[in-house]
Amino acid sequence: MGPHPAVAAIRLAVRRVLHDILTEYGRPPAPPSHERSPSPLVLVACSGGADSMALASALAFEAPKLGIRAGGVTVDHGLQSESDARAAEVVQRLRELGLDPVESTAVTVGRGGGPEAAARDARYAALDAAAERHAACAVLLGHTRDDQAETVLLGLARGSGIRSLSGMAAVSGADGRYRRPFLGLDRQTARKACMVQSLPVWDDPHNTDPAYTRSRLRHEGLPALEKALGKGVVEALARTAQLSRDDADALDTWARQAEPTVRDTAGLLVCARLHTLPSAVRRRILRRAVIEAGAPAGSLFARHVEEVDKLITGWHGQGAINLPGKVVAWRQGGRLVIRQG
Amino acid sequence: MGPHPAVAAIRLAVRRVLHDILTEYGRPPAPPSHERSPSPLVLVACSGGADSMALASALAFEAPKLGIRAGGVTVDHGLQSESDARAAEVVQRLRELGLDPVESTAVTVGRGGGPEAAARDARYAALDAAAERHAACAVLLGHTRDDQAETVLLGLARGSGIRSLSGMAAVSGADGRYRRPFLGLDRQTARKACMVQSLPVWDDPHNTDPAYTRSRLRHEGLPALEKALGKGVVEALARTAQLSRDDADALDTWARQAEPTVRDTAGLLVCARLHTLPSAVRRRILRRAVIEAGAPAGSLFARHVEEVDKLITGWHGQGAINLPGKVVAWRQGGRLVIRQG
Repeated sequence: MGPHPAVAAIRLAVRRVLHDILTEYGRPPAPPSHERSPSPLVLVACSGGADSMALASALAFEAPKLGIRAGGVTVDHGLQSESDARAAEVVQRLRELGLDPVESTAVTVGRGGGPEAAARDARYAALDAAAERHAACAVLLGHTRDDQAETVLLGLARGSGIRSLSGMAAVSGADGRYRRPFLGLDRQTARKACMVQSLPVWDDPHNTDPAYTRSRLRHEGLPALEKALGKGVVEALARTAQLSRDDADALDTWARQAEPTVRDTAGLLVCARLHTLPSAVRRRILRRAVIEAGAPAGSLFARHVEEVDKLITGWHGQGAINLPGKVVAWRQGGRLVIRQG
Repeated sequence: MGPHPAVAAIRLAVRRVLHDILTEYGRPPAPPSHERSPSPLVLVACSGGADSMALASALAFEAPKLGIRAGGVTVDHGLQSESDARAAEVVQRLRELGLDPVESTAVTVGRGGGPEAAARDARYAALDAAAERHAACAVLLGHTRDDQAETVLLGLARGSGIRSLSGMAAVSGADGRYRRPFLGLDRQTARKACMVQSLPVWDDPHNTDPAYTRSRLRHEGLPALEKALGKGVVEALARTAQLSRDDADALDTWARQAEPTVRDTAGLLVCARLHTLPSAVRRRILRRAVIEAGAPAGSLFARHVEEVDKLITGWHGQGAINLPGKVVAWRQGGRLVIRQG
């Protein structure tokens, strides 16, 4: 008798990603060897929740068959009382799964960009450090299709275009370090896989705390949307993420290629040339130019770029436009001047 | 004392669109003239609800000042008892606003594509006919920013990419016949404008009937989303529509331009050439090719195109792919053959 379908699903998802990793690292899939050269190491980032515990169990099962060493790291955010004891418990569970090395790493969460963004920044910095310390070739993350759907809705709420609708990438980070094998799996499958494998899981109280936007979205927003639009919403959002990502990539490529053609010999943007481009391409070039001039990307909104665009498409002699990061844009002699003031 | 801000807002929105219409029709804005040549006619499509009654009142006020004749048409869908009496009442109200000509037109709603789509198809056919009968140069529609937000969410639920996120266009139909002056205004402003002008409005029971997807979205889905994500959601969705539309237009242009370069002299699609394109562009070319071969656009989903794409990006000798409209696609000698079977 084979494994439970949920366990089969999480293992298949991990196996595919491990194959990709081996292919990219130039090693064909091979049985475990006892040669001197160390096997590649893949870490799992594990909070102790159902998604990442399922991921850890699948990694522990699949990695040895492919000659890969499986390790784990848990990040202690220090945001809840006894989070250190919690982290020690996760370490213990990962060891019980057979992972090695396993470590807990404590971080200090700052305040930049709101509590969720600050925790995320601290977490990825710690994971980067752990990956480098252990010379791991990849770090697996347990984000599911449900997380992806939530991320798309969070991006939608920014109203800043299709890049923010493209959610999380299956491969991201320096040299494609981060991999998300479960982006196509639903949360329920991960939870079920833990249950049938008798893996204890921890439910982070933050995940149900209505003080967090994502938690409100998960427990109220998305269920209401499903009720109105039907059960396929999560899948549709995840598909939208993939399609938007491909579209945004293609348009970024176009903008990068078109950019040199709309500059004069002095390197200034020529309004008449910009005018001939599709607005989607023109606005991407303008956005890049404003960021290069010193505007922080996170503070530069669609409406800012829209205003700069009006210097080209709605020119009626308007004055200089003030942008984030003290960047100023104005039109002069048919050229666009974008400069930090 | 000027008009109430809500009334000022609806009039400004209509004035801008009327200016656009006059500019496009080659007539400069001019005072009403009593010459023989008839003034251009603009119709408003009016259900009697707050949005379209506000629109009718603003058209009645602004059109004469620009030498435009203002008329109205109401569509009797025959879906509710006494809908004919209702239509007669709307006609009466439009006449009282000074519109001329005004007419009610009865339609028979079919069943194609669900009740909402069938009603919409019948409505636009009737409006097209009315516009041609009266030689109107434009038909104004009362869709607001809230309607736009709902349309984006409905598109999101299809998960078929950014074109379906682009909502309703400000200008659409044959020769740009349909105009939506209120796409940037919220529903509340239209309602307020009716109230302060003492215009009676009719609340269509369909708009609150939970049997309709849009109604569920309006009264449950969107409010829950606003509660989770904050008050700016409607505006963010409307902005997403505009940005997605521009992006989709640009990518369609790219695909149209790239298409001839990936065909051989016999007109067949060359897999190796398709492979070099960004996937966003390649999939658009494939989608067009499948539709040209006879697949109905409305039945062709992202997953179908994805499967055809795998003949190029994931080729392992797979067989022919069956697509909607009895279209079959297969790979042969490095070419893609797409044909109705």
